[in-house]
Amino acid sequence: MKILRAPRSMAAWGERLRREGVTIGFVPTMGALHDGHRSLIRAARLRCDALVVSIFVNPTQFGPNEDLTRYPRPITHDRALCRAEGVDVCFEPTPNAMYPKGFQTIVMVPEIAQQLWEGAARPHHFVGVATVVTKLFGIVRPHLALFGQKDYQQATLIKRLVTDLNLGVTIDVRPTIREKDGLAMSSRNRYLSPDDRQAATILYRAFRAGRQAIEEGIKNASTVERIMRKTVAQEPTAHVEYLALCDPASLEPLKQVQRQILLLGAIRIGKVRLIDNMLTGC
Amino acid sequence: MKILRAPRSMAAWGERLRREGVTIGFVPTMGALHDGHRSLIRAARLRCDALVVSIFVNPTQFGPNEDLTRYPRPITHDRALCRAEGVDVCFEPTPNAMYPKGFQTIVMVPEIAQQLWEGAARPHHFVGVATVVTKLFGIVRPHLALFGQKDYQQATLIKRLVTDLNLGVTIDVRPTIREKDGLAMSSRNRYLSPDDRQAATILYRAFRAGRQAIEEGIKNASTVERIMRKTVAQEPTAHVEYLALCDPASLEPLKQVQRQILLLGAIRIGKVRLIDNMLTGC
Repeated sequence: MKILRAPRSMAAWGERLRREGVTIGFVPTMGALHDGHRSLIRAARLRCDALVVSIFVNPTQFGPNEDLTRYPRPITHDRALCRAEGVDVCFEPTPNAMYPKGFQTIVMVPEIAQQLWEGAARPHHFVGVATVVTKLFGIVRPHLALFGQKDYQQATLIKRLVTDLNLGVTIDVRPTIREKDGLAMSSRNRYLSPDDRQAATILYRAFRAGRQAIEEGIKNASTVERIMRKTVAQEPTAHVEYLALCDPASLEPLKQVQRQILLLGAIRIGKVRLIDNMLTGC
Repeated sequence: MKILRAPRSMAAWGERLRREGVTIGFVPTMGALHDGHRSLIRAARLRCDALVVSIFVNPTQFGPNEDLTRYPRPITHDRALCRAEGVDVCFEPTPNAMYPKGFQTIVMVPEIAQQLWEGAARPHHFVGVATVVTKLFGIVRPHLALFGQKDYQQATLIKRLVTDLNLGVTIDVRPTIREKDGLAMSSRNRYLSPDDRQAATILYRAFRAGRQAIEEGIKNASTVERIMRKTVAQEPTAHVEYLALCDPASLEPLKQVQRQILLLGAIRIGKVRLIDNMLTGC
């Protein structure tokens, strides 16, 4: 496995392979890889000739009071996982190589990124995501890129920007990988104390309660939301940031249940913020 | 010469050629082609195996009170010019193909695009330019793209965004082509009445007066600016929007003359707005 740090070397590698007709798969990550990433890497490995994983803790998608400095960076573990999964290139640019002096361009997806859910809660987050993904796609120029459904709104944003900017990358969104007790895998789970780790499953349990209510025929979205909130309330350390029934395409909140529904939520447990979602319908 | 209208066909054409190792040159235009465009096309023709010219009057770079609807669209003339210059593909997308329903992504280059000169005068203009150029580069994926120096700030913006977003396109900015009397060629010159057409040379004459003052040793930028303004004042129909000595890299206004100087200006003659610039130094 090659480890490349310079955007220029990464771009040259891709350029050479594309000329040879090789298809390039790409899994962009912030490292601290877990089985969720592993499932993306495996899915990419099956569908592409060459596979690039980027590991870059992107500073521009963190807010000023967020966890940029303490974000986990277990690079030896991450490389070992990539190597074991047959990754061809681990791309590890420095912040300085990605954002050199004079850098100023930003990519915005206003409706998805500013008005709804994670966008409303974290105003600069998705500008950082959209910009870094555009840059990474410019450098790697993959045919296919894979993202996890756990970050549903992020995946929606990326599909939108790839279409809007004609980036020519196929986006594949893969199902969320969960711990045995239902907690969605996330690099941030390691912030949880043992007690909080137990409590964290409440979000998934809330979605299950919501799904069950829908399956039982409840039609009113706010009734389903109330049921989900009541579930979260069973854990006194958990605080709901939002918990809603949305349209899976537009992410707009629903008033009535419909054929396809996205249950979407964010909770805080202590200082740790967790997001998750579930696709369901009636 | 191929005429392609669908972004998908254009992208497929480029993809096939790049695989064969062909280098692609690209001249993005809004049509109404003149000798300025011709010089870009000829320069590209010499340096690339395959040459694409796009003709697209981009609605998003026009303000609400600007000349979008009356912008000239002499498509037969434009295609003939392209054919005569050995262009391989004339890419003529429709506004709807470029901005279909749901489109929302924008590319911003805040400092260059919002704070200075044309950016300050036309607040949405450069967002439209940055976004459409990113899209066109995504579709055509050229190795080389050419722009005219007449739109100096636009060229600066495009170089910045290509670097910042790692678009991997070499940008070549070519000298302004002028009429015999010095007027910079522009598709908008045809809006000028015969009298205004005469008066329009005053901007170039102002730059010449400014350059002469610098060559004669004047060091104070505002003195040079005063000389340029006095020149424009000789034409009673001409109104200065801005006229300044700037740093050619940052476009920031200068207080003192320096080794390399950009004389930059915009004037109105009647309802027609003209921009031009001159590189000089001492």
